Amino acid sequence: MGRRHLEPEDIVRYEEDGPKVVLLDQRRLPDQAVELECSTVPELVTAIRELAIRGAPAIGVAAAYGLALARARGEDLDAAASALAAARPTAVNLAWALAEMRDEPTPGHARRLHAEEVERCRAMAAHAAELFVPGTRALTHCNAGGLATGGYGSAVGALRAAWERGLLAHVWVDETRPLLQGSRLTAWELEAAGIPNAVIADSAAASLMAAGEVDCVVTGADRIAANGDTANKIGTYALAVLAAHHEVPFYVVAPTSTIDSATPTGAEIPIEERSGDELTTRFPARNPAFDVTPASLITAIVTEHGVRESVSP
Amino acid sequence: MGRRHLEPEDIVRYEEDGPKVVLLDQRRLPDQAVELECSTVPELVTAIRELAIRGAPAIGVAAAYGLALARARGEDLDAAASALAAARPTAVNLAWALAEMRDEPTPGHARRLHAEEVERCRAMAAHAAELFVPGTRALTHCNAGGLATGGYGSAVGALRAAWERGLLAHVWVDETRPLLQGSRLTAWELEAAGIPNAVIADSAAASLMAAGEVDCVVTGADRIAANGDTANKIGTYALAVLAAHHEVPFYVVAPTSTIDSATPTGAEIPIEERSGDELTTRFPARNPAFDVTPASLITAIVTEHGVRESVSP
Repeated sequence: MGRRHLEPEDIVRYEEDGPKVVLLDQRRLPDQAVELECSTVPELVTAIRELAIRGAPAIGVAAAYGLALARARGEDLDAAASALAAARPTAVNLAWALAEMRDEPTPGHARRLHAEEVERCRAMAAHAAELFVPGTRALTHCNAGGLATGGYGSAVGALRAAWERGLLAHVWVDETRPLLQGSRLTAWELEAAGIPNAVIADSAAASLMAAGEVDCVVTGADRIAANGDTANKIGTYALAVLAAHHEVPFYVVAPTSTIDSATPTGAEIPIEERSGDELTTRFPARNPAFDVTPASLITAIVTEHGVRESVSP
Repeated sequence: MGRRHLEPEDIVRYEEDGPKVVLLDQRRLPDQAVELECSTVPELVTAIRELAIRGAPAIGVAAAYGLALARARGEDLDAAASALAAARPTAVNLAWALAEMRDEPTPGHARRLHAEEVERCRAMAAHAAELFVPGTRALTHCNAGGLATGGYGSAVGALRAAWERGLLAHVWVDETRPLLQGSRLTAWELEAAGIPNAVIADSAAASLMAAGEVDCVVTGADRIAANGDTANKIGTYALAVLAAHHEVPFYVVAPTSTIDSATPTGAEIPIEERSGDELTTRFPARNPAFDVTPASLITAIVTEHGVRESVSP
């Protein structure tokens, strides 16, 4: 799978023969491309919680297939939906996908949701590409790629679209501690797309900005509150503060399924705290998985509907 | 060696029997406390370059012992000094220690320089502790501890002094990618000192500041230019920008041997670029080891002579 683009069904799919949900185990990338088969909802919940599949839109799609799996197995749909929704707290896409599935919990409907999610990525990438000028050197954090969205990618989709239009010169890839989604997944996707890139320590972004080597920052999102405050991978907020300090535009690219109009501001978004063992097993550690970037630090949010520039600083 | 303080001679020392320079191999901490014996200057240069001993004051002390070793072996002192000075480019302490040694390249003189360096740490720690108020929750980056200075520590020395005076409640320890000097070395030293602490991802400092959980940032320095611009471990500059944004005081604690009056501003400080393999061996990477924090973002620089508050923002 090394150098070709992943198809949506490579990332997550439903197989009637089983039945089962099959997903590419992202924990083992880039060294190994191994599929994980989930024949029960608890197996899928574990796969989501332990990050075999991750990224807000992708876990939404996986949960949609999970509800189809529960129905095919004759299980209680409410219990299945509750377990899937609780697998991870920060992304709103889990709840969104489950709500979308309730009236028609079939494989066909889940596949339509999946295809629509990928189409939204392509649409938002086309909009986001309009923000790039020739020679742009972009910086991205974590993985908002095809792996995170079930295909094509949100922030990485924007980079792909800009690259195809001849507007992108280089991508700085934050390695994204502790789980290295940048240096394991985003660098792998960019290599497959032939886009010049270099991994950096998360803490090196500031001095690259100071040296004038970063023209924009582009990230995905796990949940966007009604006021535009955006939860995303830990470190995103730091980048937004640094970008503002250096007058570098900061763009969020995410499908509308990530927008949670029921959450007024970022203060109400639950932030997942993960085990400190992801950082060190030797000493005490604190490991929030996400942070919240206030809308005032975001230059523009790009969805499948277009570019929404920030209302006010 | 787990829970006791390191003595200066545990970190680096000269043994006439050999002769040799013996140092604690910091690459293998905290899992193993193993000593490395350098019987020649090239062996010591390699040990410094490959970070068996690191930290600006500590490598200055090691180089001082190295010059004594060269003399004991009847080697050319100019060649030895050149090789030691070139081992790492950013810290000025190498050049400082070698200049101090030229007139009297003896083990006894090197030991006096070592003891004076540790005394400077104790003096600056006492000054720095005056900046703390009861209940302070401090954040530190990399390792500016006893391991980095040949004993007691600069920034970590300040934390120790504040702890002993009952002023310190907690320390957030940036893990400090790529080589994890925070989660391997600083957490180990703080544990030995009994100081409550938790390791965090470097990228998590911003959201802790936003949550009001950081009362000050304290770091060491590898070189301080005449105007107060300060080179230190990559990520320090990001912390300084973030601290300013959140109105958190940012303190640099370093001996005067770190001040380079011959370098007018941070722009003239050479920044070491290390191998990208420290980040990832699978993809291209860029790995600057240090960055420069402008004096305007530093609330105060503390040396053995006292607290020098920043002149102007």
